[in-house]
Amino acid sequence: MSLTKKIPDSTVRRLSHYLRSLEGFEEAGGTVSSEELAARGQTTAAQVRKDLSHFGSFGKRGLGYRVDELRARLRGILGVDRTWRVALVGAGRIGLALFEYPAFRARGYECVAIFDADPNKIGQDRGGLIVRDPSEFEVAVEELGIELIILAVPATAAQEMAGRAVEAGVRGILNFAPIRLNVPPRVPVEDVNLVMELEALSFALSQNERDA
Amino acid sequence: MSLTKKIPDSTVRRLSHYLRSLEGFEEAGGTVSSEELAARGQTTAAQVRKDLSHFGSFGKRGLGYRVDELRARLRGILGVDRTWRVALVGAGRIGLALFEYPAFRARGYECVAIFDADPNKIGQDRGGLIVRDPSEFEVAVEELGIELIILAVPATAAQEMAGRAVEAGVRGILNFAPIRLNVPPRVPVEDVNLVMELEALSFALSQNERDA
Repeated sequence: MSLTKKIPDSTVRRLSHYLRSLEGFEEAGGTVSSEELAARGQTTAAQVRKDLSHFGSFGKRGLGYRVDELRARLRGILGVDRTWRVALVGAGRIGLALFEYPAFRARGYECVAIFDADPNKIGQDRGGLIVRDPSEFEVAVEELGIELIILAVPATAAQEMAGRAVEAGVRGILNFAPIRLNVPPRVPVEDVNLVMELEALSFALSQNERDA
Repeated sequence: MSLTKKIPDSTVRRLSHYLRSLEGFEEAGGTVSSEELAARGQTTAAQVRKDLSHFGSFGKRGLGYRVDELRARLRGILGVDRTWRVALVGAGRIGLALFEYPAFRARGYECVAIFDADPNKIGQDRGGLIVRDPSEFEVAVEELGIELIILAVPATAAQEMAGRAVEAGVRGILNFAPIRLNVPPRVPVEDVNLVMELEALSFALSQNERDA
């Protein structure tokens, strides 16, 4: 199936929520209605049906969806029915926190290497992996089959490392650096900018005050 | 100015990017064109002008924006021209990483308390603050004037803590727990779900494969 139509980010996020809900069901053999999924994802049943309709037909009218079937389909759609080989670039607190997060491994993201430019960190053990010198990056991508990187370096170093990753054949980037990376469109980038999240929050609060 | 019209999240995120760009300018007395701001934010000049037009008139046609003026206006719009008193609920790696992030303090988010239910953590020093028992939460919100919380507790505890925070008068929540919080609409919630970000990435990569 070729999806030339772009699926909105908000849909993808709801699919993640649906999957999380389905994983909470005890009896995998049972069924679930779009109303039940909607209630858990704080959306509407119509939205659930519309979101799933992007990916073909699911469930039977009036009977709902089979939990195990929908779960497997969603895992396939979200690309978490396989293992992704991930490297952490920048061994700061946030990147390491993600690596130790149980759901990270449970969802098939396998950490295979850690890089940091700090000479005090190079050679140290972090969760069973030895921190490597960034000069080894290209060789490691090739040898370890690294597909994704978590980019958690300072803003000043981020674009250079992103460029090197793309050159080396890395296919996607989870970016914690507070800049917009310039990479070819074939390489998806997800930005996680915690200060921006806080600014969105203080923006909303300031608007509330102004409207009050 | 009453803004009954909802500003899209994507606009707010671009405003954060523009502010970040403006803070990079050395000469505060100079001017900047919408083209320059667009280039740094990887958007278009028309988009910059449209984003800013939500908030009144800025700049002079053909002359661009004064850097210091626009910076001050954006800081006001984003609510970062004042101090927000923030508590961390859940003293795990991610929450602590955020607290130690230089930009956190630089943007006016002041950490005034840390709570954790783990008896081994209660009473310990974390970056100059003593970790408190969550039973003290309501009293601390009142005494310390806590306005925002960073909710970084396990999913099973998140809704209860969010409810208590709203009851206690907390005005906004940055939520790291992987659930949708059920709070009144007057209390804005920003969700940061790192696994969901990774799923968005593997989704995009899986789509690429399918289209190839």
